[in-house]
Amino acid sequence: MSDNNSLNALIEGLRRLPGVGVKSASRMAFHLLQHDRAGAQLLAQALQQATTQIRHCTRCHTFTEKEVCDTCTDPRRDAAKLCVVETPADQAALERTAAYQGLYFVLMGKLSPLDGIGPKDIGLSKLFERATDGVVQEVILATNFTAEGEATAHVIAEALKARGLKVTRLARGVPAGSELEYVDLGTIAHALVDRR
Amino acid sequence: MSDNNSLNALIEGLRRLPGVGVKSASRMAFHLLQHDRAGAQLLAQALQQATTQIRHCTRCHTFTEKEVCDTCTDPRRDAAKLCVVETPADQAALERTAAYQGLYFVLMGKLSPLDGIGPKDIGLSKLFERATDGVVQEVILATNFTAEGEATAHVIAEALKARGLKVTRLARGVPAGSELEYVDLGTIAHALVDRR
Repeated sequence: MSDNNSLNALIEGLRRLPGVGVKSASRMAFHLLQHDRAGAQLLAQALQQATTQIRHCTRCHTFTEKEVCDTCTDPRRDAAKLCVVETPADQAALERTAAYQGLYFVLMGKLSPLDGIGPKDIGLSKLFERATDGVVQEVILATNFTAEGEATAHVIAEALKARGLKVTRLARGVPAGSELEYVDLGTIAHALVDRR
Repeated sequence: MSDNNSLNALIEGLRRLPGVGVKSASRMAFHLLQHDRAGAQLLAQALQQATTQIRHCTRCHTFTEKEVCDTCTDPRRDAAKLCVVETPADQAALERTAAYQGLYFVLMGKLSPLDGIGPKDIGLSKLFERATDGVVQEVILATNFTAEGEATAHVIAEALKARGLKVTRLARGVPAGSELEYVDLGTIAHALVDRR
């Protein structure tokens, strides 16, 4: 389709989405043009709006349209607790449990030396500054239980303990509703060690 | 993220893409905002541009930015041959073979009574008019070899044969490079019947 620059540009644009190759991008482009031009317009406006409006909260680094996000400014939140998560999606998962009333710090990534992501890229010095403001009593590490998430948690824990803060990690154990027979060995071993 | 209307709007917008659920949409939104805002801007412009510029060729129904597409106006094309395909992607696949020099008619869909897609939705009367212009000698049916594609081909073939046109169908047979042992029975049976 050599004469179709707009279509080619659209397919190229859709390929910028993570996990979308040229076949998926073509399928998406054809779908939008043939069946959902209103959706395409909506998406264009949403992208425009989001890229101009959304920035990082100056206190917790999460996405927000304000200087400081609503969670950070909420007076009902327990400012003595600070939960460290990798992404806003992780933060949202914790919020959905309604089991946590403290504040957050969102790393917006994880330490990953192989990808060239070091302490600076995930704002660790900012986190250390934030955690040692005198109000925070406990830092709860809720990075993912992957190799990189664990390494990130380890680095943060060491640095904050050296600064005299109480540092905890989300409990590892058997997921709710599961049968032991089908749970992997590593998880059962951790659940045994961390028994209470 | 109750305070984040732009982010929620972006996630909703991305969910309009086919095959994208709320988890994928969130992941895409976070990726664009965190790592590729330029890509997001590019995609927004491409969507805007495509929805305003791209329309259907009045001769063959494919996507184009002109009244009549470049393929239809190309004088080197053999106007005696008309190839009927379901989508512009199918047309592109045929073009890549460089084995066809005729013109196209793009249905932009297929007959699918269960989804409420009838002859009107895929422009069959338009196709019959186009195929009986006196120049077209042969109509090559290149709809997909699925149940719906076959049914669509059958309906078109019956109608065009009744109008005295030569109607052919893409050959069914063993794919290039494959070993008979691993080819499904239906394909081998078809290859036997259509042997030459």
